[in-house]
Amino acid sequence: MRAVIMDAPRQITVGEREDPRIIEPTDAVIRLTATCICGSDLWPYRGVEPADHTPMGHEYVGVVEEVGASVTTVKPGDFVVGSFVISCGVCEICRSGYPSKCIHAEFVAGFGTQAEKARIPHADGTLVATPGMPDDGLVPSLLAASDVLGTGWFAADAAQVGPGKTVAVVGDGAVGLMGVLAAQQLGAERIIAMSRHADRQALAREYGATDIVTERGAEGAARIKELTGGLGAHSVIEAVGTEESVLQAIHATRGGGHIGFVGVAHEGVQLPLDQLFFAEVHLHGGPAPVRRYLPELIQKIWDREIDPGKVFDLTLPLDQAAEGYAAMHERRAIKVMLTL
Amino acid sequence: MRAVIMDAPRQITVGEREDPRIIEPTDAVIRLTATCICGSDLWPYRGVEPADHTPMGHEYVGVVEEVGASVTTVKPGDFVVGSFVISCGVCEICRSGYPSKCIHAEFVAGFGTQAEKARIPHADGTLVATPGMPDDGLVPSLLAASDVLGTGWFAADAAQVGPGKTVAVVGDGAVGLMGVLAAQQLGAERIIAMSRHADRQALAREYGATDIVTERGAEGAARIKELTGGLGAHSVIEAVGTEESVLQAIHATRGGGHIGFVGVAHEGVQLPLDQLFFAEVHLHGGPAPVRRYLPELIQKIWDREIDPGKVFDLTLPLDQAAEGYAAMHERRAIKVMLTL
Repeated sequence: MRAVIMDAPRQITVGEREDPRIIEPTDAVIRLTATCICGSDLWPYRGVEPADHTPMGHEYVGVVEEVGASVTTVKPGDFVVGSFVISCGVCEICRSGYPSKCIHAEFVAGFGTQAEKARIPHADGTLVATPGMPDDGLVPSLLAASDVLGTGWFAADAAQVGPGKTVAVVGDGAVGLMGVLAAQQLGAERIIAMSRHADRQALAREYGATDIVTERGAEGAARIKELTGGLGAHSVIEAVGTEESVLQAIHATRGGGHIGFVGVAHEGVQLPLDQLFFAEVHLHGGPAPVRRYLPELIQKIWDREIDPGKVFDLTLPLDQAAEGYAAMHERRAIKVMLTL
Repeated sequence: MRAVIMDAPRQITVGEREDPRIIEPTDAVIRLTATCICGSDLWPYRGVEPADHTPMGHEYVGVVEEVGASVTTVKPGDFVVGSFVISCGVCEICRSGYPSKCIHAEFVAGFGTQAEKARIPHADGTLVATPGMPDDGLVPSLLAASDVLGTGWFAADAAQVGPGKTVAVVGDGAVGLMGVLAAQQLGAERIIAMSRHADRQALAREYGATDIVTERGAEGAARIKELTGGLGAHSVIEAVGTEESVLQAIHATRGGGHIGFVGVAHEGVQLPLDQLFFAEVHLHGGPAPVRRYLPELIQKIWDREIDPGKVFDLTLPLDQAAEGYAAMHERRAIKVMLTL
C-alpha cells in the first residue's frame, strides 16, 4: 500500500509499505478515507525529534475492512473515527476517563495512518462507528475529532471552562483554535484568543473568540490580567508546550484558576517550579483522552452543531504529502488534510 | 518587645523590636500565646535564602490586644488563630476560596510572629476567633492550624482525597504528617507515608498511615506503583518542593490522578515539563489558602476530633529560639513550638 514515510528531517516520500493485517483478535484493519498532518509531525520534520524512514500519521477516519475474532463494537463496512492513542476501554484507568493512560496505551503514531490502510489494536476500546456513512462534507470534521478537536475539547474541559468564565487560549494552531470552539460550546462568557496571524484570528473569531491579544510571553499575560480586572482568566488553554508558552499560561491565570495543558512538551523543556507554585493554579493535561469525548463529538458533528473541519485550510491527495508538510512548516496552512 | 531575629544564616538572636501598633483601620495587634518554627524558616537558616537581621515567624495564636476602627469580627480579649497569609476576605479571589492569592495578599513572614506581639493587617479577613479561651492543651493544635495543619489539609483537598482512594504522601516533615492526618479525616482508604525516620513513621501511623515506604525518587515511585496494582496512587501529597520530590510525586500518581503540591519550590528549581505532560495528572497547589479551612479546623480541634499539636515534639520558651532552630535543622525535632 502507499504510505507517507519521513526518510529524514524535511524528506517526505510517499512509498510502499506492506499491507497491515489482523495480528491480535482485538485488532481492526481500516481503509482510510482521510488522514492529516499534525503540528507534532513538524517536530521530526524540523529535526527536533529523530526521523529515519519513519511511517507517519496518527489521525484517521475510514471504513473497517476486517476485524479480529473478539471485536464486537465495529464491523466491516462501518465508518469509524478513532483516537490517536490506542486504549482497551475496560481497564481501571480507561473506566476512570483516561483512555490515553490505558494500561495498554500505545500511540497510533507507531502504526502510521498517513497511509491507505492501518491496523488499529484494541479496536473496541479505540474506535467509534458513526451513525452511518457520512457525506463527504462531514469527513473533515470527523477527522478533526480524531485528535485536534478532541485535544482542544479536553483542554477546555481540563481548564474547567463553563458559563460565566473568561477563557484565554495560548497558541493559535489547530489545537488552540479547537480550544476556542470547545470553549464556545461549553458556554464560556468571554474567549480571548492569543494570536498574531490574521487568518488564524479570523477563524478564532468564527469559532467564538470575543477578544484577540497579539502580545506574547510576560506581555501577553499582563494583557490578559488587564482585560480581567487585574485578576487573570478563570481558564487558560495551553496549546504550545514550550517554557515560554506554559509560563504565559500560568501568569495569565487567576489564583485558583485552571489551565488545560495540551501543548506537547518536549524532552529538555524545563519549567521554573517556583513560578508554578506561587501562581497557585490548577494544571491538568497531557495526551488528550480523546476516546472519552468521541461519542459526544461525533454526534455534534453529525447533527451539524459544530464544524471543526474548517481548521483544514489545505486539502491534498496523499501523494502530495510532501507539499502538505512544507505548507504547514512554512505556516502557509494551519492544518493539512490528506485524502485517499 | 522581644522578638526572634535571624542576623545571618545560623545566627538566631532574641532581641528587642519596637512594639507593633495599629496603622490601618483594618489592623489588629495581637499578643502571642505561642508561635513556632517552620520548615521554610530553615531555608534562610541554611543560607539557601538571604537572612540579614530578618524578623522571623509567620505562624501564630494569641489574644487580640487592639483593633482598628473598621474591624468587626474580632475584638480585644478574643483568642485568635490566623493564616500565614494576610487576606481581605472580600475580594473576588478570596470569595472564590483562594485567600492566599487575595488581591491584598501579604506573607505574614514580613511581620515576624516569633515575637511577643504582632500587627495583623486585614484582621477580619485573616483571623478567626476560637469559641472561647482554649485550655493550654489545645494551644499546640490551634497553633498548627495557622499553617502546617491548614497546609496539609489543603494538600489533601487539592489531591482530591476521599473515600476509596489510595493516597501517597511525599515528605515526612510536619506538613507531610498533617497531610496524613487530613487524608485520614477525609476518608482515604489507604494512606502510604514515604519516610525513612522511625519517629516520623510512628507519628504517621498514629495519624492514620496504613503503609510506610522508605524508598525515594524513582524507586519510591516504583514502590507506590507496585503497591497499587501497577497503576499509581489516586492522590499524592507533595510536601517537599524539590525537583526530585515533585518527580517522585508525579510518577507515583496514576494517569488522571491528583497531586496536592505544597512543598515550597525555591527559585532555580526546574521541572522537566515532558514528564509532567506525559504523566497526565492533575497538579494543584501553592501557598495554602489556610483561611478557607480555619473555621472547620478550629471546630475539629475544639471538639477534640483531631490532635495535630502532636507534631510539635519540642517546646521551648521564645528566648531559646536558637536551640529550636538548631534542633529542627539537625532533625532532632520535627517541629518546634515557642511559648511566651
